[in-house]
Amino acid sequence: MKYINGKMKDINIAYIGGGSREWAWKLMTDLALEESLEGQVKLYDPAVSFAEDNAKIGNGFSKRSDAKSKWKYSVVINLEDALKDADFVIISILPGTFKEMTSDVHTPEKYGIYQPVGDTVGPGGLMRALRAITIYIGFAEAIKKICPDAWIINYTNPMTICTRILYKIFPEIKAFGCCHEVFHTQNLLRRIIENTLEIENLTRDDIKINVLGINHFTWISSASYKNINLFHLYKDFIIKHSEKGFSTPEEDKEDIVFRSKNLVKFDLFQKFGLIAAAGDRHLAEFMPGKSYLKDPETVARWKFMLTSVTEYRMKKSESHAIYRKKVIAGEEKLELKPSGEEGVRMIKALCGLTDFISNVNIPNQGQFQSAPRDAVVETNAHFSYNSIKPVHAGDLPSSIKSMVIRHIYNQETVINAGVLKDKELAFLAFLNDPLMTISSDDAKSLFNEMLSNIKEYLPGWKI
Amino acid sequence: MKYINGKMKDINIAYIGGGSREWAWKLMTDLALEESLEGQVKLYDPAVSFAEDNAKIGNGFSKRSDAKSKWKYSVVINLEDALKDADFVIISILPGTFKEMTSDVHTPEKYGIYQPVGDTVGPGGLMRALRAITIYIGFAEAIKKICPDAWIINYTNPMTICTRILYKIFPEIKAFGCCHEVFHTQNLLRRIIENTLEIENLTRDDIKINVLGINHFTWISSASYKNINLFHLYKDFIIKHSEKGFSTPEEDKEDIVFRSKNLVKFDLFQKFGLIAAAGDRHLAEFMPGKSYLKDPETVARWKFMLTSVTEYRMKKSESHAIYRKKVIAGEEKLELKPSGEEGVRMIKALCGLTDFISNVNIPNQGQFQSAPRDAVVETNAHFSYNSIKPVHAGDLPSSIKSMVIRHIYNQETVINAGVLKDKELAFLAFLNDPLMTISSDDAKSLFNEMLSNIKEYLPGWKI
Amino acid sequence: MKYINGKMKDINIAYIGGGSREWAWKLMTDLALEESLEGQVKLYDPAVSFAEDNAKIGNGFSKRSDAKSKWKYSVVINLEDALKDADFVIISILPGTFKEMTSDVHTPEKYGIYQPVGDTVGPGGLMRALRAITIYIGFAEAIKKICPDAWIINYTNPMTICTRILYKIFPEIKAFGCCHEVFHTQNLLRRIIENTLEIENLTRDDIKINVLGINHFTWISSASYKNINLFHLYKDFIIKHSEKGFSTPEEDKEDIVFRSKNLVKFDLFQKFGLIAAAGDRHLAEFMPGKSYLKDPETVARWKFMLTSVTEYRMKKSESHAIYRKKVIAGEEKLELKPSGEEGVRMIKALCGLTDFISNVNIPNQGQFQSAPRDAVVETNAHFSYNSIKPVHAGDLPSSIKSMVIRHIYNQETVINAGVLKDKELAFLAFLNDPLMTISSDDAKSLFNEMLSNIKEYLPGWKI
Amino acid sequence: MKYINGKMKDINIAYIGGGSREWAWKLMTDLALEESLEGQVKLYDPAVSFAEDNAKIGNGFSKRSDAKSKWKYSVVINLEDALKDADFVIISILPGTFKEMTSDVHTPEKYGIYQPVGDTVGPGGLMRALRAITIYIGFAEAIKKICPDAWIINYTNPMTICTRILYKIFPEIKAFGCCHEVFHTQNLLRRIIENTLEIENLTRDDIKINVLGINHFTWISSASYKNINLFHLYKDFIIKHSEKGFSTPEEDKEDIVFRSKNLVKFDLFQKFGLIAAAGDRHLAEFMPGKSYLKDPETVARWKFMLTSVTEYRMKKSESHAIYRKKVIAGEEKLELKPSGEEGVRMIKALCGLTDFISNVNIPNQGQFQSAPRDAVVETNAHFSYNSIKPVHAGDLPSSIKSMVIRHIYNQETVINAGVLKDKELAFLAFLNDPLMTISSDDAKSLFNEMLSNIKEYLPGWKI
Repeated sequence: MKYINGKMKDINIAYIGGGSREWAWKLMTDLALEESLEGQVKLYDPAVSFAEDNAKIGNGFSKRSDAKSKWKYSVVINLEDALKDADFVIISILPGTFKEMTSDVHTPEKYGIYQPVGDTVGPGGLMRALRAITIYIGFAEAIKKICPDAWIINYTNPMTICTRILYKIFPEIKAFGCCHEVFHTQNLLRRIIENTLEIENLTRDDIKINVLGINHFTWISSASYKNINLFHLYKDFIIKHSEKGFSTPEEDKEDIVFRSKNLVKFDLFQKFGLIAAAGDRHLAEFMPGKSYLKDPETVARWKFMLTSVTEYRMKKSESHAIYRKKVIAGEEKLELKPSGEEGVRMIKALCGLTDFISNVNIPNQGQFQSAPRDAVVETNAHFSYNSIKPVHAGDLPSSIKSMVIRHIYNQETVINAGVLKDKELAFLAFLNDPLMTISSDDAKSLFNEMLSNIKEYLPGWKI
Repeated sequence: MKYINGKMKDINIAYIGGGSREWAWKLMTDLALEESLEGQVKLYDPAVSFAEDNAKIGNGFSKRSDAKSKWKYSVVINLEDALKDADFVIISILPGTFKEMTSDVHTPEKYGIYQPVGDTVGPGGLMRALRAITIYIGFAEAIKKICPDAWIINYTNPMTICTRILYKIFPEIKAFGCCHEVFHTQNLLRRIIENTLEIENLTRDDIKINVLGINHFTWISSASYKNINLFHLYKDFIIKHSEKGFSTPEEDKEDIVFRSKNLVKFDLFQKFGLIAAAGDRHLAEFMPGKSYLKDPETVARWKFMLTSVTEYRMKKSESHAIYRKKVIAGEEKLELKPSGEEGVRMIKALCGLTDFISNVNIPNQGQFQSAPRDAVVETNAHFSYNSIKPVHAGDLPSSIKSMVIRHIYNQETVINAGVLKDKELAFLAFLNDPLMTISSDDAKSLFNEMLSNIKEYLPGWKI
Repeated sequence: MKYINGKMKDINIAYIGGGSREWAWKLMTDLALEESLEGQVKLYDPAVSFAEDNAKIGNGFSKRSDAKSKWKYSVVINLEDALKDADFVIISILPGTFKEMTSDVHTPEKYGIYQPVGDTVGPGGLMRALRAITIYIGFAEAIKKICPDAWIINYTNPMTICTRILYKIFPEIKAFGCCHEVFHTQNLLRRIIENTLEIENLTRDDIKINVLGINHFTWISSASYKNINLFHLYKDFIIKHSEKGFSTPEEDKEDIVFRSKNLVKFDLFQKFGLIAAAGDRHLAEFMPGKSYLKDPETVARWKFMLTSVTEYRMKKSESHAIYRKKVIAGEEKLELKPSGEEGVRMIKALCGLTDFISNVNIPNQGQFQSAPRDAVVETNAHFSYNSIKPVHAGDLPSSIKSMVIRHIYNQETVINAGVLKDKELAFLAFLNDPLMTISSDDAKSLFNEMLSNIKEYLPGWKI
Repeated sequence: MKYINGKMKDINIAYIGGGSREWAWKLMTDLALEESLEGQVKLYDPAVSFAEDNAKIGNGFSKRSDAKSKWKYSVVINLEDALKDADFVIISILPGTFKEMTSDVHTPEKYGIYQPVGDTVGPGGLMRALRAITIYIGFAEAIKKICPDAWIINYTNPMTICTRILYKIFPEIKAFGCCHEVFHTQNLLRRIIENTLEIENLTRDDIKINVLGINHFTWISSASYKNINLFHLYKDFIIKHSEKGFSTPEEDKEDIVFRSKNLVKFDLFQKFGLIAAAGDRHLAEFMPGKSYLKDPETVARWKFMLTSVTEYRMKKSESHAIYRKKVIAGEEKLELKPSGEEGVRMIKALCGLTDFISNVNIPNQGQFQSAPRDAVVETNAHFSYNSIKPVHAGDLPSSIKSMVIRHIYNQETVINAGVLKDKELAFLAFLNDPLMTISSDDAKSLFNEMLSNIKEYLPGWKI
């Protein structure tokens, strides 16, 4: 990596996973549009053909005249080669296949437990976490050995657990987790201003917020645009939209299963007084009892959807594969426009070319006052040359803290269970999840069935 | 209060409440048996006749030849008189009447929520807490004004909340909460030793334990008798008794509705690895989901009972009233023997006549490592002249901490709701209780009904 | 205060003190140059003529064509009038007169104790602190009563103590302390880059630093320009300049008594490995024993000066008065150019018109890891609409922490002594200052003499 | 180790060092007098003849009819043999010889720095610490390997540093430091009661105290006998004895060089309001500037002595050797009476035979509120079966904390310097010691000379 005439050249990025989803494309697009960064990306995916496709697409970008910088993409077939000399490592994997994901999301439905996403908390999130922990222990050990000074950017869910296990295995690691849920909430606030105050052409960056919590259960404790306290505006707005809800144009462009009318978010504000900064599908999974997920009818009433793995994700994946082939064949042309993600901006700051504040998932050093040290929490942080320093975010009210910290210790239990390969310990976390409103006996049956479904991803466990 | 020839004379005790229950008798008995303490007790109870009965019984003790010290009991008819010149204030009230208690325990049953006690957590515990907070704010203000240097001993449930609100209103107060649940667990360990090792004549004090948690949800993290680690013994013992359970002779003497076979306690040990140090009826109320309280059949299977207010407590109260009249009339004679409670021993230590270690409920100064400062927690403490200093108890594993700290913040929310008279805030705590496995709408209906039932105890609330 | 077309209008600023020094002029200049802010400034100074002079000069700026905004300046003759409706309160007073300052700086010289500044720590700093505390208690009480929501900007030394006493008296106050010493160090780094790397036209903002410590004893633990770690550069540079030292062009423009060659700063780096971020004259006063202040010869060897009150400050004040008259008479014209201070930029951010990161003195919320909570510490913070949030700065090595935290607790003792008007307690802090290398008896004599010299500023003390 | 009929038999103790001083004799005496403990002691001392002498004396005790238990003493000639199967390891070494001790104490006198002991802080304490750290790193590594579950009792000075380095190298170690200075202060309070209140036959245990601080700089924040607050008594007493001082009969039996009249302790109480709980010779070394150690005349005025290594310790050692020979030859008979030390009582409690509270040096878990975690601090702790749990001691006032925490971080610097063999880092701690009232240049010369004097004890250092 070297700095020449205002540009950072010869940056080495290792990209782990990312095959099946559009994350890799977003990153490649943003890299192509950032004129001050240039280098090479080594793509590593156990499913090699995905990596090969991405390499073709990425190198295709570099040939285009509208690409402001020219990155070289190559495929490597083992992790060690990817990590060698890496300045940045981006991890975006699917821990398991659609088969395991189907078990995560749909098996609990037999017991009346509904999860709109099933990748963070709840029974599905826990099972996914156990698989991810096993894989991430390997990542952390390899990074420690091969590129201990590299910055690690994690995109994989469950975000909090994936990031935390990296630090548990290699405490000196420079890792952080990125997620766009908070950005969407900033966009919602932006649209509310535009709708309400007849101000136009705002950007997400105009909305200043203080965030704290854990990923997908993050809370905004203050928000402003210029000298306007947005809490008053938000309050008035949601009272008007408490019936039908509201969604931004950006949200309306999403696939239908991802859409919502933000009714959960609005309800949480009316109850708790803070703005929950994640999508309704995620938020609902963190809340106690049967608040929003009692049954499909309740979900429908709150106007979000249970994202079926079989009905949606698998079909989507197939259609995407067809589309990908067309792109590679030149039959479809991808547009080079900013993705709205911040990964590349963060890389630029860590290279010393800029500095800025954004929300990020890193171990708690006190930025989230009452959260335990070492828990991975989400707050604002200042990104600058080779440095991410959390901004002190204060504390949450006890009514929210009770829920957030319950999850934090549950996640700690999951991590310990994953490291120790301890089935009984994992069950304690499973039983203590807020979605677990069934009897202990039923919980045990469900746990055993789900664990059995994913056992090939849990080597060394006694299942 | 003055020290003469090895005895502390002229001690002033204010005894608040305590009419209907046998607590007052136990204290009066223990005082009569402690030869190094003497003085007067002012009894204050809004139900004056109870106080009068107790005065008669207490003064009766002082006339007996087997009383080692002679205390004077008198009735006062307002709180201020009771507190005047007090060295010690003992508070043991019933916050409400059987009518409110009936609502606490039985109204939730309509929604399938069963509470064996309903005085600590769960929907019943919360409603009782709201009533108690209102009363205790008055106590704290009066103590601050009239006897700020007195030691305050609280016996009222919900213990944690009653003790914490005293500190919230008057931070310099010298208050602590006493509870015998941990003693019963020590006795259980004693009986296990006797049964297993053929050692006889042990006392509770022979069992050395480290406790931490919150009242009625306290955990023993190490236990020994001489050089014997009791965890091994306990483990072997409960495996043998996992089917039928086990109870101590002391437990078998209790009224049938209070009895249990400790099967919940044993199950918690097998799951979590620590000894839960409260009765099964209490423990079950703290656990998530439908672990032990799914329905009456589940309760029966775990071999403890749902203590009915109407069927048991009210009848018990009536028979006790008859018995009390007989005692006063001299037709029944109370035996002067140690109650097994530690209140008098604590008074003795605070007077400087002895020092010892016992478990106690006081604000966290770090003795329970991960618990928030200011939360009232239960650990060992060293009692000596005018001093209670907590012993560092370490920390709980994350699997237990997740549950305990959830309750701690819920209790903080309840306290804030009580102070602010904020119905919506109270509902947030209500909804977040582990027993609340019903839908949000049902929870709201239940909450409103229960709150309405107790509204005369919530002056100034908008209900 | 209202926001109109990108400008914040009708801002009310109370300016307390600031008469004799050029601080007021700098602020008025920066206000005149900031086109997005406008309003009125009420000037309050017990020495009314100074306030009147400043009003004339300030209103003179507003008439000039090169002033980008037009502020109105008026004189008020009591504190309450100044604070009424204030959005911002700027405090920049001299606690005492030259008479007291002469005692602060020169009386200790009789005992061989030399202080180049005598306004922060050391015997002089302590005496000044005692005077300031008395005055600041009054400020805090008036602010609490009259403008509790205003932002308070403190410029008075001792900075740490003045800011901390405000919070002690009124914990909800929104106060912070500003100081330019760190800026000068950033400028030093900028000049080192320019001299070494042939890069030109840098600004202070290009130098990214992490700072932590207490005012005038702040430390830079990392520094970068783009992707260049400035510690390596600094190290090489000071080795080359370890004999003669180095000063920036800006430093060379200062009055001779303020100049230094940064030899103390360089020496501290070689010893402790971090960059001390204050001028040599200040740094020397914090260091133990006789490191840099043994005697005037030692001071001369380290190439900084003992700033005499009688020889320099009083004369300077007289010549400044003459100059001021000329300015008011229009015989001299002040140039409108940025002062290099950040007060106006901070006001702009707090108004919501921008946001940025700068170093600031506020109570520790964990941003300086090992420092006690509530101590006022200096680290970076993020300034935005109605918000200052500290950036987590990490910790100092034990070798530096030992010195810094000694001062923090000493300052706490001084504050307690000031509040309690406790002479004996003040002496304990006096005795424990690192400059106090004389015997206890001599220290007592010196203390009594100095205290006696300032007794008219210590009403209610028994001296 | 096995428990039979109320006695713990077959205890294995490793005794490291202890040759030249009477510590070993005291322990052997106390062991002989404790009927509930029995086993074997392996004596290891690089100076084998000392170990052999002690074995003879110890085994001689076991033959006596007044010995209540019969211990077997044997000499081992390497550390590993001593540690094998050890239940307890007692470490009481002299880090260096009289030659190094002479340098520690007397070399600084050339620069006017006087140390009455020179084994804890000050230039002498630092040099001794550097030697001890090297040796203790070896101990910690051997214990980790050979007897990781043993309890380690440290008697060596500098106590705090020796105990802390054990934890730094092997964090799971079960080590604690014992010191009798606090006991002496309890005895002083006992004598004051006897003198003042005509109460007789008190014991040290009757005096209840709360202690906190670091070894040899420990403070009593409350003290009582029965219901008597001893602070009032102490205050009155020292006012009466502020001229001539006071010493207990026990103190008067000490060798003359160890005696004092407690004038420093009394002066500290008058200044700081707490009772300093160590001897005047130690206390004086911790205090800033030239409080009590300006010169020999000042020392004489405060009525304690500078303990000369050459004039006293070496001669004392010779006479003790002669005496020892006589004892072994049976020409002198040692009396079997309790030593007043608590080591054996602690062993008994750790074996589970009793439990009690005593002061001890262990890592801070919050018992000393403001002290950094991991610093070794001295407070009360509860000793019971296999457990030492600190009692929460609260906090010190800022006036004392400033001094104590300065030393804590200085000690941390010394430890880091010792581990890293870093001469420059060691010098920073040296320079920051309160006794270092000389110029930096003189300090550097002194440091180099002292370090050179002990270089054979610092293998691997660049000196």
